Amino acid sequence: MLVRSQHSPFKQMAQMSHHMLPVLVAAVLSITAAASAASSHSHPHPLDPLTPDEITAVRAAVLASPRVPARPLTFHYVGLDEPDKPDVLAYAYGGSGSSSRPLLPRRALVIARAGGQSHELRVSVASNGTSAAVLSHAVHSGAGFPVLTLEEQFAAVALPQAYPPFVESVRRRGVDMDDVLCAVFPVGWFGGRAGTTAKRVAKMLCFVAGPTANFYARPIEGITMVVDLDAMAIVGYRDRVTYPVPKAEGTDYRAGKTGPPLAPGVAVQPEGRGFHIDGHVVRWANWEFHVGFDMRAGTVISLASVHDHDADAGTRRRVLYRGFVSEIFVPYMDPVEEWYYRTFLDAGEYGLGLWAFPLQPGADCPANAAYLDGSYAGQDGKPVGGENRICVFERYAGDVAWRHTEAGFPDRLITEVRPDVTLVVRMVVSPGNYDYILDWEFKTSGSIKFVVSLTGLLEVKGTSYTHADEITVDAHGSLVSENTIAVYHDHYVTYHLDLDIDGTNNSFVKNIITAKRNTGDPATGGAGTPRRSYWTVRREVAETEADGQADVNAAPADLLLVNPGKKTRMGNEVGYRLIPSGATAASVLADDDYPQRRASYTKKQVWVTPYSKSEKWASGLFADQSTGADSLTAWSRRNRGIRDQDIVLWYTLGLHHIPYQEDFPVMPTLSGGFELRPSNFFERNPILKIGRPPIRSSASGNCSCDAR
Amino acid sequence: MLVRSQHSPFKQMAQMSHHMLPVLVAAVLSITAAASAASSHSHPHPLDPLTPDEITAVRAAVLASPRVPARPLTFHYVGLDEPDKPDVLAYAYGGSGSSSRPLLPRRALVIARAGGQSHELRVSVASNGTSAAVLSHAVHSGAGFPVLTLEEQFAAVALPQAYPPFVESVRRRGVDMDDVLCAVFPVGWFGGRAGTTAKRVAKMLCFVAGPTANFYARPIEGITMVVDLDAMAIVGYRDRVTYPVPKAEGTDYRAGKTGPPLAPGVAVQPEGRGFHIDGHVVRWANWEFHVGFDMRAGTVISLASVHDHDADAGTRRRVLYRGFVSEIFVPYMDPVEEWYYRTFLDAGEYGLGLWAFPLQPGADCPANAAYLDGSYAGQDGKPVGGENRICVFERYAGDVAWRHTEAGFPDRLITEVRPDVTLVVRMVVSPGNYDYILDWEFKTSGSIKFVVSLTGLLEVKGTSYTHADEITVDAHGSLVSENTIAVYHDHYVTYHLDLDIDGTNNSFVKNIITAKRNTGDPATGGAGTPRRSYWTVRREVAETEADGQADVNAAPADLLLVNPGKKTRMGNEVGYRLIPSGATAASVLADDDYPQRRASYTKKQVWVTPYSKSEKWASGLFADQSTGADSLTAWSRRNRGIRDQDIVLWYTLGLHHIPYQEDFPVMPTLSGGFELRPSNFFERNPILKIGRPPIRSSASGNCSCDAR
Repeated sequence: MLVRSQHSPFKQMAQMSHHMLPVLVAAVLSITAAASAASSHSHPHPLDPLTPDEITAVRAAVLASPRVPARPLTFHYVGLDEPDKPDVLAYAYGGSGSSSRPLLPRRALVIARAGGQSHELRVSVASNGTSAAVLSHAVHSGAGFPVLTLEEQFAAVALPQAYPPFVESVRRRGVDMDDVLCAVFPVGWFGGRAGTTAKRVAKMLCFVAGPTANFYARPIEGITMVVDLDAMAIVGYRDRVTYPVPKAEGTDYRAGKTGPPLAPGVAVQPEGRGFHIDGHVVRWANWEFHVGFDMRAGTVISLASVHDHDADAGTRRRVLYRGFVSEIFVPYMDPVEEWYYRTFLDAGEYGLGLWAFPLQPGADCPANAAYLDGSYAGQDGKPVGGENRICVFERYAGDVAWRHTEAGFPDRLITEVRPDVTLVVRMVVSPGNYDYILDWEFKTSGSIKFVVSLTGLLEVKGTSYTHADEITVDAHGSLVSENTIAVYHDHYVTYHLDLDIDGTNNSFVKNIITAKRNTGDPATGGAGTPRRSYWTVRREVAETEADGQADVNAAPADLLLVNPGKKTRMGNEVGYRLIPSGATAASVLADDDYPQRRASYTKKQVWVTPYSKSEKWASGLFADQSTGADSLTAWSRRNRGIRDQDIVLWYTLGLHHIPYQEDFPVMPTLSGGFELRPSNFFERNPILKIGRPPIRSSASGNCSCDAR
Repeated sequence: MLVRSQHSPFKQMAQMSHHMLPVLVAAVLSITAAASAASSHSHPHPLDPLTPDEITAVRAAVLASPRVPARPLTFHYVGLDEPDKPDVLAYAYGGSGSSSRPLLPRRALVIARAGGQSHELRVSVASNGTSAAVLSHAVHSGAGFPVLTLEEQFAAVALPQAYPPFVESVRRRGVDMDDVLCAVFPVGWFGGRAGTTAKRVAKMLCFVAGPTANFYARPIEGITMVVDLDAMAIVGYRDRVTYPVPKAEGTDYRAGKTGPPLAPGVAVQPEGRGFHIDGHVVRWANWEFHVGFDMRAGTVISLASVHDHDADAGTRRRVLYRGFVSEIFVPYMDPVEEWYYRTFLDAGEYGLGLWAFPLQPGADCPANAAYLDGSYAGQDGKPVGGENRICVFERYAGDVAWRHTEAGFPDRLITEVRPDVTLVVRMVVSPGNYDYILDWEFKTSGSIKFVVSLTGLLEVKGTSYTHADEITVDAHGSLVSENTIAVYHDHYVTYHLDLDIDGTNNSFVKNIITAKRNTGDPATGGAGTPRRSYWTVRREVAETEADGQADVNAAPADLLLVNPGKKTRMGNEVGYRLIPSGATAASVLADDDYPQRRASYTKKQVWVTPYSKSEKWASGLFADQSTGADSLTAWSRRNRGIRDQDIVLWYTLGLHHIPYQEDFPVMPTLSGGFELRPSNFFERNPILKIGRPPIRSSASGNCSCDAR
């Protein structure tokens, strides 16, 4: 299925001369204006993403401001600078009706490049959304650069075909330049210049498409090409070694559908959907939350609260203030010249929202899904309407919410079963070769399940090997096809989860499973029985950040965020616990290795920090060529107090990926995740009384679908 | 929903006088005969469970045999003694058509009690299924006793109400005997007599129902009552201490449905199901497998093979010879007199198939499910028809099988998405208070996902505490309600998985993630680049059983079963790997503790043994009061060779359960599992070409269901 890209006007722009620009810009604006008119602005929320109008106003204010006179000025990040947390909380939970809620100021954070510098600007947006003013400006003096723009990548990949050494390299390999595609790869940092003396360079890798769409499977191996993104010129080149380009046959993933037919099926909701989306606020069952969109984080879930049936009628209880994927670290494991630097930070270098694409109805999301758009700013600062970036759907997977069969009564069998229905909020990010399906699954039990599903294409290395028996040295990967080594790598998906369990101030508790010998003495937990051992719980409350780290594969423990000021009727602190579900790998790279310094937090799955509005991006605000000086680990070295504070949980799913042939040419989804589960949050099972939806118990014959 | 129990005739029997027995037996036989007539015998398979007719014939042969003259003779296990593996393989994969397949002999294994001894009898069943003959007989001389029968448990729990010390205990606590229910709990083994000098005793615990069905929430604490099951008499009694009986209010889980309504929904298959069940053989998509049923294991999946599209047309490739849950170990963590022995082996003491109950359509399984019955033998050896013990359904969860969005082409966006449809085979076992939802999920990618979902009721201890602040010593559990401590415990679900990856002889391989320093020298895997570290794979092939153990939380590794005689075109050994998905706890009990000796294999999640037909039950054939002498760990001490052999994988899911208030009065499901995933089994992604089912992309409005 070919879908015209939302990107395509910009890509075409890169190839056209400048005087065509205004015409195209107008066309794009009208497209996006039409798109924005379709979305609902009837109930604006302080956490709503910047609207296209607001983005337009921000752009104008930045360009009109005397603070950054250098031109060109390129926009690398434009996002909501959300109101300060106390103001948002007052807005959301202050208790006054919506009509009396004070309008919170709208602000944008802009990261721009101009004059060879990175600029941070905070811009206020007028309440009518059509004008804005720059509030503050700072030049970034530390290490690292902003997110790469799509436009500069498109411009850069157009350079090689006119670069004579590359033309020669291609010719020498017997490849037709018309079949060649290139992509931009961040260089990372390897101990050289950092900060303002570093050049904003990237590397480019090229591939052969030809008859296949899967050009990633056909790399032109052995070439290192460096492009200066500010100068938009190739400034380094080395063709070190030649390897065969893997053949096209067997690499394509398009069409070609045969194989045993599967019975068609679809989840049908005869009474329509059970959730409501009001602007960006989603209400479903006992959940309410705000769905935002950010060009770097993608989906942002805020102000998630549950309705507690047992408490006073209408009592909503807070669970999550703000949650999003903060970073995705993907280091490859081949130290050779053309591979050693492939140590991606997909959020900070590429932008998860920027690389989210339209979801395909009936395929990415089922037929009963609703969709949300995700607008963002292009390099020129103008709004781009991102259609169908997030979907929301109720899942009828046939699972059970709870059940019990009681056979203990002599005269009757008692069976109670409640089928489960959950709500999924999904985004798919395809930052190059990989596809990440990122799900938030809300359960009526109060749990939130996070699932990351990996699919898409492996990054492979051209080689002369055509059979594994030929390999006598460490190939740093698996031979998945002729001349094709799929290089070993890791994936670390780091979530920023500002949980506010029943209130803002929480503590981080480890309920440590502690083996005990039966002393025989009740005073020390023992008893005079033949039982020799048991385990009990040693409860540790983290005082400072050093206590707030955890390796989930080490000594067993339940990890909780609790509200020390709120207890159940039984006197237990209300909380939520974190339950990993696969994907618990931690990085094994050396602590002094450069990529590991930039994502050092990947040595532990769990970190807890005190809330700080600026601490969002685990590898730092300026992640491209970052050094780790601004990172989750660096912040935490201050060992700040995290007891009875506003704290943030950072959880990293990790996977060591040894590729196998099934992953080629495209990988069947592999999933891992975790659950945040109420733990003494409720007085009892919150879905004991939940209405059982009249799921048809009869055969499908009572439901039918129109002929296609 | 009240469902008349299949057990009820037997329970009623326990309370009636003996001369009524023949009348009831006839009634039951006619019921079960009618039930059996409904099931399909048109295509008998050698692994089919014993039919009611066969069970009847086996019973007659045992009772008529002179080998066990003592009476009464009680049947504790009657199950298929499956044909020897080479014969089954010849039958299934021998290549000749079904019409020319030789009929394999049908045999039963019977474990009976008579004359104070445990008897193992092998019985051959004639091919017409109506006559049988005892082939062999042995008296068990080792430790342990067979599975407890339902009937003896029903009989035992009728004793306390007429036992004067208990009557007094009940009176003293102000409880009405009419509200009292008891249940039988195995005693385990704690170093006392074992083997033939041990008495076949159990303990009984009593509870108060009254206005609630949840009697487990209202224990009569402080009493130890010992019943001799052979003598069917109470032989030990101690009322050590009195605690309040927790109140009934808030404990019931029946009805009472309020709360926010959920939108009804159902998976609809407009063209009907995509799977076919032929007797006990299931065919779906590229999978084919046999579903059996055993009174101790429950669901047994055998002869699972996948069709390989890339190979010659019609090529089925073997994956699993036989798989089932071998044991469920549930030790509680309170050493006090009334709790120290609660260290259940749910398969070996209770029988998973015996405690599986009818699945509720539209709740336990969705509307599009098909059901399989599970017949078993009662204590008298007569067949009982177990209706709807297993369901099979296609799951349309809205997940993605694989996808890729390609934004690298300058002129177009390419998106390919394949929605996923899976096949679930489900059984629910409720052996007392807990409910285990045991799922096998087959995927078209060739993966099998195993999911265990815990729900049902906690086992709780009466206490005088009404608030956590009162607790100053180790309570060995969580205060979940007034006077109610939910005791800490573990669950270990052990799977026996006789994988035969593309053939019988396999090896167990650990692909160990090994961190390396970049030496700078290509000869040792390094390169002259600034990258300081990476990881590579050190491949270890297990030679003997000691190498075949693995702690999945220790050093990271991919764990595979491979066929050393089969390689892909690329020269990689075909295999499947094991991917844990949560629930990776290992036991922390002391090695010398009695319950730990009986389930010592729970210290490692992974074991590999050479195939041996008798090695089925991880805690031994006679698990009640077992000592561990016959167990997975004991067999493995022989350190047999497991390289290029017919080997069996044993995988144990483990969970340390600290109860929380939400688990009370009934627990929202908590799931964990693992995946068996093809790894170089296929030449490439096996679902690249799979047909995309015409899932409706339109809104639900095109599908509708009849009014109720």
